[in-house]
Amino acid sequence: MDADAEISRQSGRGHDDFLERVVAVLRAEGFTGKPSSDEPVVNFEHPEQLRARLRLGLGAAVEEDDELLELVRDVVRASVRTGSRHFYNQLYGGADPFGVAGAWITEALNTSQYTFEVAPAFTLVEHEVIRHCLNKVGFPDGDGIFTPGGSAANMYGMVAARYRAFPSVKTDGMRALPPLAVFTSEDSHYSVLKGAHWLGLGTSSVVKVATDAAGRMLPAALRDAVLQARRDGRHPLLVNATAGTTVLGAVDPLDQVADVCRDLGVWLHVDACWGGSLLLSPKHAARLAGLARADSVAWNPHKMLGAPLQCSLFLVRHAGLLHRCNAAAAEYLFQQDKFYDVSWDTGDKSVQCGRKVDAFKLWLMWKARGDAGLAALVDNAMECARYFRQLLLASDAFRLVSAEAQDCTNVCFWYIPKRLRGLTEDKGWWDQLATVAPAVKERMAQRGTLLVGYCPLPHKGHVNFFRMVTTCQPPPRPADMDRAAAEIQRLGELC
Amino acid sequence: MDADAEISRQSGRGHDDFLERVVAVLRAEGFTGKPSSDEPVVNFEHPEQLRARLRLGLGAAVEEDDELLELVRDVVRASVRTGSRHFYNQLYGGADPFGVAGAWITEALNTSQYTFEVAPAFTLVEHEVIRHCLNKVGFPDGDGIFTPGGSAANMYGMVAARYRAFPSVKTDGMRALPPLAVFTSEDSHYSVLKGAHWLGLGTSSVVKVATDAAGRMLPAALRDAVLQARRDGRHPLLVNATAGTTVLGAVDPLDQVADVCRDLGVWLHVDACWGGSLLLSPKHAARLAGLARADSVAWNPHKMLGAPLQCSLFLVRHAGLLHRCNAAAAEYLFQQDKFYDVSWDTGDKSVQCGRKVDAFKLWLMWKARGDAGLAALVDNAMECARYFRQLLLASDAFRLVSAEAQDCTNVCFWYIPKRLRGLTEDKGWWDQLATVAPAVKERMAQRGTLLVGYCPLPHKGHVNFFRMVTTCQPPPRPADMDRAAAEIQRLGELC
Repeated sequence: MDADAEISRQSGRGHDDFLERVVAVLRAEGFTGKPSSDEPVVNFEHPEQLRARLRLGLGAAVEEDDELLELVRDVVRASVRTGSRHFYNQLYGGADPFGVAGAWITEALNTSQYTFEVAPAFTLVEHEVIRHCLNKVGFPDGDGIFTPGGSAANMYGMVAARYRAFPSVKTDGMRALPPLAVFTSEDSHYSVLKGAHWLGLGTSSVVKVATDAAGRMLPAALRDAVLQARRDGRHPLLVNATAGTTVLGAVDPLDQVADVCRDLGVWLHVDACWGGSLLLSPKHAARLAGLARADSVAWNPHKMLGAPLQCSLFLVRHAGLLHRCNAAAAEYLFQQDKFYDVSWDTGDKSVQCGRKVDAFKLWLMWKARGDAGLAALVDNAMECARYFRQLLLASDAFRLVSAEAQDCTNVCFWYIPKRLRGLTEDKGWWDQLATVAPAVKERMAQRGTLLVGYCPLPHKGHVNFFRMVTTCQPPPRPADMDRAAAEIQRLGELC
Repeated sequence: MDADAEISRQSGRGHDDFLERVVAVLRAEGFTGKPSSDEPVVNFEHPEQLRARLRLGLGAAVEEDDELLELVRDVVRASVRTGSRHFYNQLYGGADPFGVAGAWITEALNTSQYTFEVAPAFTLVEHEVIRHCLNKVGFPDGDGIFTPGGSAANMYGMVAARYRAFPSVKTDGMRALPPLAVFTSEDSHYSVLKGAHWLGLGTSSVVKVATDAAGRMLPAALRDAVLQARRDGRHPLLVNATAGTTVLGAVDPLDQVADVCRDLGVWLHVDACWGGSLLLSPKHAARLAGLARADSVAWNPHKMLGAPLQCSLFLVRHAGLLHRCNAAAAEYLFQQDKFYDVSWDTGDKSVQCGRKVDAFKLWLMWKARGDAGLAALVDNAMECARYFRQLLLASDAFRLVSAEAQDCTNVCFWYIPKRLRGLTEDKGWWDQLATVAPAVKERMAQRGTLLVGYCPLPHKGHVNFFRMVTTCQPPPRPADMDRAAAEIQRLGELC
């Protein structure tokens, strides 16, 4: 085929009609409609088996639209239904359908968030979403930016704190600084460690602060750790408090942590990636009391709230800092002689250059549901988690990992098979219990009836336990909780 | 309304029917179909004016579906049509419709790329895309990961180089290392500076290497710079060569740069974010000769190739390094006692935790078009740029910034208004010429007839000039080039 004919062929393919066929496949396969209770949450196949079955190979072959749609059908059928009523496996679940609508729009419009010039409406949308979120957090004069995930948002916090304490770091690097120390609870997310590596602090600069049985940072231990670091000649750079730990869902006592930070002059960053959504609920926002005293906050609406991945915010109290810290003033992109008010070009606040539009989907969800609708969805997720916890408490088949009242929607528990009930709980007993969750998990996946995560918590001495998580989407119901508990019991007694 | 009724109401909204209405809006507004030549590329309004008109505010208000669709229509009409035949403003353009289809699917399926457990098919798809790209680059035994953009991919390169040279940096940080130096051309992207700040090297560790008139790094200057750094007691960590500079589109002489890196034992990272797509063209891949000798490569299929933003790859020659470098071995996510082969869980190679599925849209494009179809699209973009350049060369109304043959699809040029032609080209003349591009750009935006970027290049002594860029989507045609040149002339003579 000659070049012109080939281009004409390539130009003609894949537009509206194909997109509409793709939408029809998603609808037919149940990925966009109201959640059904019937479909398996996963049709599990082992990696090599699935790899042999899906026609994945890339190269010379060209697929016509009909075959492409077959491939699409195969891939979606082999995917996990995170929007199923039986998916409680991660700190995210299904996507809010208004969020999906917003995401489809931004994907079709395909632009970058860096300048008003190429993203006029989306720049204003991002500004409005950030403004509204700053008010919710309590930083009315602050600033913020959407980032590609919570780990990046936590890095933004460390970079901002470092730059504020030592502006010379931007030019001169870490070698010119005293040794630094970053404080985070032993239950906090590993992104603090990854960030410490990337940012050149090193993981040994991360001081793990002890937590109580529920996983909440002990403020007295934090104070001791900061003072000890000072005595050791280390500069206490940042305290990373967590609002919603990954496993136990604990919210650190933010007010008391903020007291320590105020007394000792340390930047307070709150990793509220998971628990930040509680702010939207008048009923539960009090769990985050003290958040407004932080210097910076990370929050992922793509977790509990159900905005499609990725949707992650970094918010900072100090106006102007983000730009001063991160700007490189590239003249090819951020020309100062443009004809409009270039203070609307937000890209130089970011460590990224091209930046996906992540604000619009959240804006559309908020427009559709309003503050009260989002609050109701958060309350419902919390209420179902509470209900599930009560179910477990009422049964000798389950044991909660922590008896404390829960802060987020995580419910962590062991299933105790009948054969282990009533026996002496010695090391051998716990060793046996440790094998239950992985075995039940395998059965869940093989049968496709339920997905719930499990893990150990070695620093608390806990062997493998289940972590059940409810989110806003699809809105869970008490009957779903009954079914999940019953299914774990059923699978736990098989074999 | 009581809580149950509110949840029932929230649960019932926004599913298939709403999505289909959104798709219809996108179709009706011309954002998903074949590109038309008639629609303005932008309906420009100044920020405050647009802000006053769009109903952006978030809060208590709730919009019903009809109003939401009105808001959507307002936002898309106020957005730039990057898929227009008159958009040549950035290093990206329209989205490949198969890429949009892929993006819509992953948005609807809403999962994270970190484990096979929650992304079985997408894990295998990412693996296949990376495998195919590694073969194209010439790292058959290498490894790779999708990252949220080119700046992040370039940081991955610096982090990998640093870890390989000094594994202790992961725990001990930058203070334990000798002073480092990173080498990059004076025409390279600012992400190297931003990365040096974030990663704790400091921007003063970045040594800018001189380029020729076309913007290509001078290998002899690189060699001198590396040797000088050594004499100054700095450890040469990494050379960042560029395959496709941001403004001029220059490809550094990779083979000669690789010789320097081999001779002096320095990690070679190639920022091929822009030019990497040339690899897909048998006709143009030779421009990247030497790429296979690099240690690592960054490539953004969301640029020239038209995958929807974000789609960015980091590829590295050294197997196993990504995991060793970045792993934190979080037990809640990467359990080693899972029932399937957990070597398929790729998340711990990443600095991110949750990671958007960016591979599938590229995979679908590749399946639809095959190697040859993608090559034809790249060739067409290059051919149209060559045609545009010839147009300018044939006219005294235009002057090219560099007479050298171009490496990528960037065509950089001044428009010389009639009133300035034939005069002495003294400082006053250049000062006047500097005002032409911003003035023409304002007219382009106000009229919506064309969008082409402009910038100065101070280190080359160049005042504001236009940077015209063609990409694969929508496939440009010679007639579009004729029109663009004519429109710049027309606008340049107004007022």
